[in-house]
Amino acid sequence: MEAEKTPMSLKNLDGRLKRFKRQLEKLRLEAYLCLQPANIKYFTGSPAAGELAQGLLIPLEGEATLYISRMGSLQASKEAKIGLKIREAASPEDFSRKLKTEAGRFKGLGFDDAPYSLISRLKKAGLRLAQHAEAVVKLRQVKEAWEIKAIRRAVRLAEEALAEASKYVKPGVSELEVAAAAERVLRLGGSEFYPFSTLVASGFRASYPHAEPTRKKIRDGEPVVVDLGAKVSGYCADLTR
Amino acid sequence: MEAEKTPMSLKNLDGRLKRFKRQLEKLRLEAYLCLQPANIKYFTGSPAAGELAQGLLIPLEGEATLYISRMGSLQASKEAKIGLKIREAASPEDFSRKLKTEAGRFKGLGFDDAPYSLISRLKKAGLRLAQHAEAVVKLRQVKEAWEIKAIRRAVRLAEEALAEASKYVKPGVSELEVAAAAERVLRLGGSEFYPFSTLVASGFRASYPHAEPTRKKIRDGEPVVVDLGAKVSGYCADLTR
Repeated sequence: MEAEKTPMSLKNLDGRLKRFKRQLEKLRLEAYLCLQPANIKYFTGSPAAGELAQGLLIPLEGEATLYISRMGSLQASKEAKIGLKIREAASPEDFSRKLKTEAGRFKGLGFDDAPYSLISRLKKAGLRLAQHAEAVVKLRQVKEAWEIKAIRRAVRLAEEALAEASKYVKPGVSELEVAAAAERVLRLGGSEFYPFSTLVASGFRASYPHAEPTRKKIRDGEPVVVDLGAKVSGYCADLTR
Repeated sequence: MEAEKTPMSLKNLDGRLKRFKRQLEKLRLEAYLCLQPANIKYFTGSPAAGELAQGLLIPLEGEATLYISRMGSLQASKEAKIGLKIREAASPEDFSRKLKTEAGRFKGLGFDDAPYSLISRLKKAGLRLAQHAEAVVKLRQVKEAWEIKAIRRAVRLAEEALAEASKYVKPGVSELEVAAAAERVLRLGGSEFYPFSTLVASGFRASYPHAEPTRKKIRDGEPVVVDLGAKVSGYCADLTR
């Protein structure tokens, strides 16, 4: 299968930010801090920003600011599909300090979620943060047309990998060989890494919810469970047979 | 390469818990709540507990309690290499409630780290939690002999995958094909999934810190960066060339 690149248009992202700002107004928030990788990617269109940024500050008025290490700033600036201020933050301490300067004036500053240790650090730095994870969740729940296309492509690619796996499921083949064959189809079909560890379990371990493939060879008449996923433009499929 | 199963002996885990309880005494904590998957796996020896449990409560006196969904409890009980009480927790609400009953009496209850949303929920349920991430970090920094062996095996396996990748790096081969070949060696060599997304980047993208492989074919004279990892008994290697 040819999993073509799904285009994210600048228009999509502008629309997202507009809809999001309407939510912020309803919640009486002056700004919002995204700390979850998937949310940062959702608003910027940059996978590298999702992986490497420390945070994305979205004020009601004006441009958003992306905080990212020097290492990642060039890639994020090239990938971002929307206008952004990019500020380098060398460490969590540096991030807190710079964020305080830019966001300390906001009385209502919402955020999504992050490790407790990071939120404690930001609060100690003087930021008045209030958790409003639902603001982004609500927005992301409603899918745009191209997002639905990406999900469909991910499902089709996962189906192809399952079909390949089922060719390998026979006595004498190891669980690892089945996993490797399925993952090869996912990779060459353009899956962005794998959304989760491919599970292949035969015999009694087929009843386990989290059974990583082993060297064990499949025996005649045994049940075999395969659970795998594909990722296209950030959207995942998860199929089990 | 044959990445044999590295045995975790019950003795190892008993020693870990003893050393950890000495740290809790120094910190004047009556109990400790592990919420980080890697820490739960470290103390129980169960990968499924690491992936599926909601938390592990370690009191100074008596057995530890693992909170896990009904789906994961059988697998965790079979895998755990140490004596544990296992309590089923159906949801985060159920987890907070049961934890309050068992741990509400502890005045000093340390914890490692978790999403802010979960810690807020547990605090609202009435638990007097204090973050002491350093307690587990210090313990885990000192590696046991078998842990060093596992790390060495992970490095050797990653080296084999890099050697395979370099056979594929030539004009006309796509980045995805290089990644698929390297991952096949990792999988069949027994790597437990992959510690992170295999990066293969050619041309100008070789300068990017986070460049997922694409359909782009390698051209003559281009720089190519490969960054990959292997995982053996939970211990990871990360090599870049």
